Amino acid sequence: MTRVPVCIRFNPHIMAGGHERISTGHVDSKFGISIHQLRHVQRVVASTGLRVNGLHMHTGSDILDAEVFLQGAEIILEIAEQFPHLTFLDLGSGYKVPYKEDDIATDVEELGARLSARIVQFNAGRTTPIELWAEPGKFLVSEAGTLLARVTQVKQTTATVFVGVDTGLNHLIRPMFYGSYHHIVNASAPDGKPRIYTVAGYICETDTFAQDRKLAEVHEGDLLAFRNAGAYGHSMASNYNSRLRPPEILVKDGKAQVIRRRETLDDLLATQMGTGA
Amino acid sequence: MTRVPVCIRFNPHIMAGGHERISTGHVDSKFGISIHQLRHVQRVVASTGLRVNGLHMHTGSDILDAEVFLQGAEIILEIAEQFPHLTFLDLGSGYKVPYKEDDIATDVEELGARLSARIVQFNAGRTTPIELWAEPGKFLVSEAGTLLARVTQVKQTTATVFVGVDTGLNHLIRPMFYGSYHHIVNASAPDGKPRIYTVAGYICETDTFAQDRKLAEVHEGDLLAFRNAGAYGHSMASNYNSRLRPPEILVKDGKAQVIRRRETLDDLLATQMGTGA
Repeated sequence: MTRVPVCIRFNPHIMAGGHERISTGHVDSKFGISIHQLRHVQRVVASTGLRVNGLHMHTGSDILDAEVFLQGAEIILEIAEQFPHLTFLDLGSGYKVPYKEDDIATDVEELGARLSARIVQFNAGRTTPIELWAEPGKFLVSEAGTLLARVTQVKQTTATVFVGVDTGLNHLIRPMFYGSYHHIVNASAPDGKPRIYTVAGYICETDTFAQDRKLAEVHEGDLLAFRNAGAYGHSMASNYNSRLRPPEILVKDGKAQVIRRRETLDDLLATQMGTGA
Repeated sequence: MTRVPVCIRFNPHIMAGGHERISTGHVDSKFGISIHQLRHVQRVVASTGLRVNGLHMHTGSDILDAEVFLQGAEIILEIAEQFPHLTFLDLGSGYKVPYKEDDIATDVEELGARLSARIVQFNAGRTTPIELWAEPGKFLVSEAGTLLARVTQVKQTTATVFVGVDTGLNHLIRPMFYGSYHHIVNASAPDGKPRIYTVAGYICETDTFAQDRKLAEVHEGDLLAFRNAGAYGHSMASNYNSRLRPPEILVKDGKAQVIRRRETLDDLLATQMGTGA
């Protein structure tokens, strides 16, 4: 048997999650090896002497129902019986984060309790107990980040009142990319009279953050706060339209600190090289 | 009358183009002032003494039919009669670029001839002739750029043969963002036996460039060429998944030259600042 440990990612073929583009466990996914190819994997392991110390599975994103995770766990635990050298199971995550004010999140405490009980039961029959791993990245950071943008204009068209802001899909692409809902608060005047607005970014496309959204009355110069910008916010940001990426401010124990400075035009040009024309 | 010239962008309410997200001329667009608000504009011009020297209109993107542009021109020419100090009309563009092998493009020569004839006719009744402006950015550069990526794996799943490449939606987001078609050529072996593949990027999402696409037989290490990457390619690129943006190579008169160098990890970290922890 080889000494280098190998973790195998299986695809459990559970189609679940918030959006086709982020659902990773369905049949036609590039991720993992189909559980229907298990026998093939076993032949490769036997013939090469691979030391399989871990199994990995990731079902998708924005999954609310603990049952889906438990179903996935049952599938991977059944496979796990075939690999005697396992030391861990990595079940990924995909826990649902609340986006709207009255959204509920995946109950991770309930999920943890039920999964743990199941793993304890599984380990009872083993000489080496396996560890249970999770990858709850988005669950930890999504709500921790807020994008602040300045209102540059309030514009009445024939059918709509647009709020224009000094940000766009170059900074927060989720609304345009996935149709994602991001809660928006008028941070400058949160108690104003509620009115209906369409909030649009400054990019040369539709660039709509929110359509017909109720906001406390908005005026030019107000600061709007876009919630849930901690995950897939700055990390997906671009320089589209030659716009600069914004700074990131860490607020901890009531103190604010710049942890990523605002880009400058020099940053934008840093990788350009003269054409010697 | 004020001395500072002002150009007014009108929205002609012509809904046309390839994709809801890039169509800019429909009723609920943030772009321009509705032509139905013309009387209001006229009152503002009269009361402030604005010197309106230009009118602007942009109908959308990927518009094939010259008639659509001519319809838009008629609308703006009718409005133009109301502004005696005009020196130009800017009709934007939105000309259709060929993406598929047998696609046709907007016939810009026919469009140019017909628009010019109409403007000459319009100018006949004026003391100061107006200029006709266009903004054909994408039409000029889309086909001029090709994204080259290396095949990192060919993977048979239960239902699909995936081709994995060392690029993703961080470099070319159009397929995932707009569902855009980009023609792909196996540049390493263009004459191989045609087979059906799904081409997927390395990003932690579906990240599909092409589904069930016929390509000359692909092997690990082959270079794939993604056509039409000259517009909305590098300009929309991000560092998603902490991936670096690729270099840009200009090929002119048979000579290749790096005009934007490949990013490095230092570039990625350049704007991060110590937390002083």
